Amino acid sequence: MSARNYIKQLAELPTPFYFYDMELLNRTLNKATEASSRYGYKIHYALKSNFDPRIVEAVRRAGMGMDCVSGNEVRMAVENGFAASEIVFAGVGKTDREIEYALGQEIFSFNCESLHELQVINEIAGRMGKKARIALRINPDVDPKTHRYITTGKADNKFGISYDEIDAAIASLEKLANLEIVGLHFHIGSQIRDMQVFETFSKRVFDIKEWFREKGIVLKHLNMGGGLGIDYDDPDREPMPDFETYFDIFHRNLKIDEGQTVHFELGRSLVAQCGELITRALYNKETSAGTKIVIVDAGMTDLIRPALYGAKHKIENLTSATGSEKYTIGGPICESSDIFGRDVELPVTSRGDLLTLRSAGAYGMAMASRYNLQDLPGAVYSDKL
Amino acid sequence: MSARNYIKQLAELPTPFYFYDMELLNRTLNKATEASSRYGYKIHYALKSNFDPRIVEAVRRAGMGMDCVSGNEVRMAVENGFAASEIVFAGVGKTDREIEYALGQEIFSFNCESLHELQVINEIAGRMGKKARIALRINPDVDPKTHRYITTGKADNKFGISYDEIDAAIASLEKLANLEIVGLHFHIGSQIRDMQVFETFSKRVFDIKEWFREKGIVLKHLNMGGGLGIDYDDPDREPMPDFETYFDIFHRNLKIDEGQTVHFELGRSLVAQCGELITRALYNKETSAGTKIVIVDAGMTDLIRPALYGAKHKIENLTSATGSEKYTIGGPICESSDIFGRDVELPVTSRGDLLTLRSAGAYGMAMASRYNLQDLPGAVYSDKL
Repeated sequence: MSARNYIKQLAELPTPFYFYDMELLNRTLNKATEASSRYGYKIHYALKSNFDPRIVEAVRRAGMGMDCVSGNEVRMAVENGFAASEIVFAGVGKTDREIEYALGQEIFSFNCESLHELQVINEIAGRMGKKARIALRINPDVDPKTHRYITTGKADNKFGISYDEIDAAIASLEKLANLEIVGLHFHIGSQIRDMQVFETFSKRVFDIKEWFREKGIVLKHLNMGGGLGIDYDDPDREPMPDFETYFDIFHRNLKIDEGQTVHFELGRSLVAQCGELITRALYNKETSAGTKIVIVDAGMTDLIRPALYGAKHKIENLTSATGSEKYTIGGPICESSDIFGRDVELPVTSRGDLLTLRSAGAYGMAMASRYNLQDLPGAVYSDKL
Repeated sequence: MSARNYIKQLAELPTPFYFYDMELLNRTLNKATEASSRYGYKIHYALKSNFDPRIVEAVRRAGMGMDCVSGNEVRMAVENGFAASEIVFAGVGKTDREIEYALGQEIFSFNCESLHELQVINEIAGRMGKKARIALRINPDVDPKTHRYITTGKADNKFGISYDEIDAAIASLEKLANLEIVGLHFHIGSQIRDMQVFETFSKRVFDIKEWFREKGIVLKHLNMGGGLGIDYDDPDREPMPDFETYFDIFHRNLKIDEGQTVHFELGRSLVAQCGELITRALYNKETSAGTKIVIVDAGMTDLIRPALYGAKHKIENLTSATGSEKYTIGGPICESSDIFGRDVELPVTSRGDLLTLRSAGAYGMAMASRYNLQDLPGAVYSDKL
């Protein structure tokens, strides 16, 4: 149940903090697992979205694998009981030390982002007497129709191997004796709400897969990345994404071959809705332009998505229900960008009121900083209240 | 001397890290102190720009005061030997606990950002049996002509007390018995390179000051904030800002009264140019659109200004001088925004090359995060090499 159901307990706690609805988290994990296993698909949790230890534990219990993007993330997965065979390591900038650690752990696969990276992993694997399992991350050139900053699969960004380089990649793989290609990896972007995008994407991957088959290259695994969006506008309307439709689109369009497995990397769609950033109203003020401002004690150090992407988290007042006003909600940080929302319609909001920023379970705590020497926000779990 | 002069020593160290030219730092601090003391002006260091302990120590030795924006910053100042009488506490969102701590320390002044804050500080001071020294932060409505995100003095943002509220603020001060008004505080924005802006601003403050004088209110202190920009385009052309011209503008236009002191809050202009973010090239790749990309091991977690503000830090290759290419320089973080520059002209750059992002001493380390579970960058000081 959302924070609104725990106001009495939460009101006693020092703000700001993240509140996690553990029941919704578990329901979401189970729903996703059920929907994916219908087609034998495997979900890897995108650890970058939230590395809270209790969330990681819930993900492990749900039987998901782990999608890591740094050596430290691989280490966290290993140390939290994820089998090495369930860990993939993605990311454009893997350092030698990170590659060495992951090879030593015998992880499932490195998602490789460039020809150059193939050479480097091959060399390190050779030095260590290992064979590295790799998936080629291919840039599928699908426009995911989202914010420019959360678009990762188009032709001119830093991610993946471009179409033009696939031939060269295959040719080089023949010479790189310490690599074993186990599949392809794709990721077209984040917060994609238009299911049509996944249809285009899965059709594109079908073509690529066929192209590889014609070349006689067996792809055991197809990793489709993540990208499934959530309802930031109204989290109560859609507390869980439509995993059924999502996986069904891939099922209908990918038409996988015998023995081929399909992997997904979900983060936001699994953990965003279960998290809320709880903050307290400190001050009311008004600008000379007539804008009513409420200053709260959480800031961009706790949740940077609004400042960084212009993201909008639904804001609610948990302790007032009277009247209605439009407010700008700002944090304590000395930056003009430290604003959570403008023209936010709320009940009359005053000092001491408890506010919540909804849908903050993904890319909230994970991106927190100590700018202005702010303390990092704490975490409160519904099942411990 | 810049990092270029220490390549041999730096090449041995694990990247990424911040390099600080301590000699330039000290020269800059001395130059600013000299230029300001010519008119009896006092500089408070904006701790938010960089809280590195060795920088804080250099600031203390230069005899500057401290401009703090959180209780933790006040604590750091106190614990690092800054006299309470040299500490100001600014910020729109001071919590009760922070106010209590600062009152207990008997700091020089609270820069108050709203009428509401005046009431809250008055109440807390009363409860503690203290008198709080406060400065009214007035929103002077000067357009600083910089990036929207680093503009803080215009009429419709969250900072300061608007013109319309000054009368009410003065009226309320008469009733708030536990407050002592010691002055006014202004801050019009950051990274202001056009000295004309400071002229307009200081003339505006002159008018405001006269208005208060006519009301019979003695302002002992005028705090002009900061905002003096630095040369990000070419740090070698202007390693130190023109403090002389800057302070002279205020001297000519403020025309202070007998016994009045003027304070400044400088951060970026003191510490930006002495810092560099040193990183290593990991991979070369090319997009299907023909863009040459160099992936380095530093990312937006180490330096977020490019991703957050579109800021440009001059990038140099410290270990290659041959040829010339245009590159996109990207970090290892799984975000499309993790790009330090596009069309950056560099000598031919390959794996292992040491690169520097110049002018990174301010709002670099201070805004670092552990997103993607990246380690925080270390610090290397020129005088310890």
